[in-house]
Amino acid sequence: MKRSGILFVISAPSGAGKTSLCRRIVDIFPDMRHSVSFTTRPKRDGETDGIDYHFVSQDCFDTMVADGAFAEWARVHGNCYGTALATLQEARDQGRDVLLDIDCQGAAQLKRSCPDGVFIFILPPTFEELERRLRGRNTDTPEVIGRRLANARREMRELVWYDYLVVNDDLSRASEELKGIILAEGCRTGRTRDSVVQQFGIDKQEF
Amino acid sequence: MKRSGILFVISAPSGAGKTSLCRRIVDIFPDMRHSVSFTTRPKRDGETDGIDYHFVSQDCFDTMVADGAFAEWARVHGNCYGTALATLQEARDQGRDVLLDIDCQGAAQLKRSCPDGVFIFILPPTFEELERRLRGRNTDTPEVIGRRLANARREMRELVWYDYLVVNDDLSRASEELKGIILAEGCRTGRTRDSVVQQFGIDKQEF
Repeated sequence: MKRSGILFVISAPSGAGKTSLCRRIVDIFPDMRHSVSFTTRPKRDGETDGIDYHFVSQDCFDTMVADGAFAEWARVHGNCYGTALATLQEARDQGRDVLLDIDCQGAAQLKRSCPDGVFIFILPPTFEELERRLRGRNTDTPEVIGRRLANARREMRELVWYDYLVVNDDLSRASEELKGIILAEGCRTGRTRDSVVQQFGIDKQEF
Repeated sequence: MKRSGILFVISAPSGAGKTSLCRRIVDIFPDMRHSVSFTTRPKRDGETDGIDYHFVSQDCFDTMVADGAFAEWARVHGNCYGTALATLQEARDQGRDVLLDIDCQGAAQLKRSCPDGVFIFILPPTFEELERRLRGRNTDTPEVIGRRLANARREMRELVWYDYLVVNDDLSRASEELKGIILAEGCRTGRTRDSVVQQFGIDKQEF
């Protein structure tokens, strides 16, 4: 059945495993467009410009903000992150689903501008496990880790307005749930009704 | 995460493949309780009492109706079908999800009494394919087939109020979608929020 593209927005505290989960989803759904955010934060080892993020200078980012180029943007841990309007528009024009992994501030902005988007919050199994994962990553200073943990506690309070909660205690199980959410949302009556009615030649007057 | 059991209600025109799909779902989710309906219709070859249906006499059915033993019941193609209240209550007490495959009349009754149930409509790929499947079954007279087809057309108008539409053009794909819906509904924030809040020791006052 043909239907229009769906915007899937995924948020999670750092260390909840959002990046690994999103990679799996893009593997499972090759037609899914994974939106690459713009950021001013420094590139980490192993990251690639244009794949993990579009790494840009603060000047460049500020110009894009001034030009109204972002569907949402936010400052997190002192760095700026934003989703280009053009990315969303392009996917919508192609009728493709879009996967966006962004923080709660950005997600809250999108919730207002795209209320028919699907908002998913990924949780670590426990706070203790989150701390263990962040410390094990060896990419951040203790100060940054402390800030991320405090931020995680604050972000957890946002989970109430998300549509779905996925606890990432096991990557396979969490991937299955995320895959399930994507398949299920594609079957929602509100999204497929018109094409079904057309396909079966049901007269709309009959409803 | 512990959450309360969910009622999944599946309807479909005869021949849409509901029975095969429900069997797959019970295989995938062994904890899922497949509710067995009561019916006055004659047993078909290969059907087992207590597994496919509880086959009862019209007298017995009428007594159950009079006793208020049904959560829903309906007369379809001249036969009566009903879901015992006790079945739903038992599963709810055990915190287990329940799968109910019932016709649109019964589903509409349940939609009123269990508004937090999940209502799924299975569609055949086309009307032509539905007719082919019904004729190929060799279990019904041409009159019964004609009645089932007319009924299918009428039932298709009910799809608008279901939560999800699954087109059964390919059994594997349709099973995946149904599995996805079941997993996704288990992740809905409204169903899991309280246990997450408890698990993470988040003060409810913080929301």
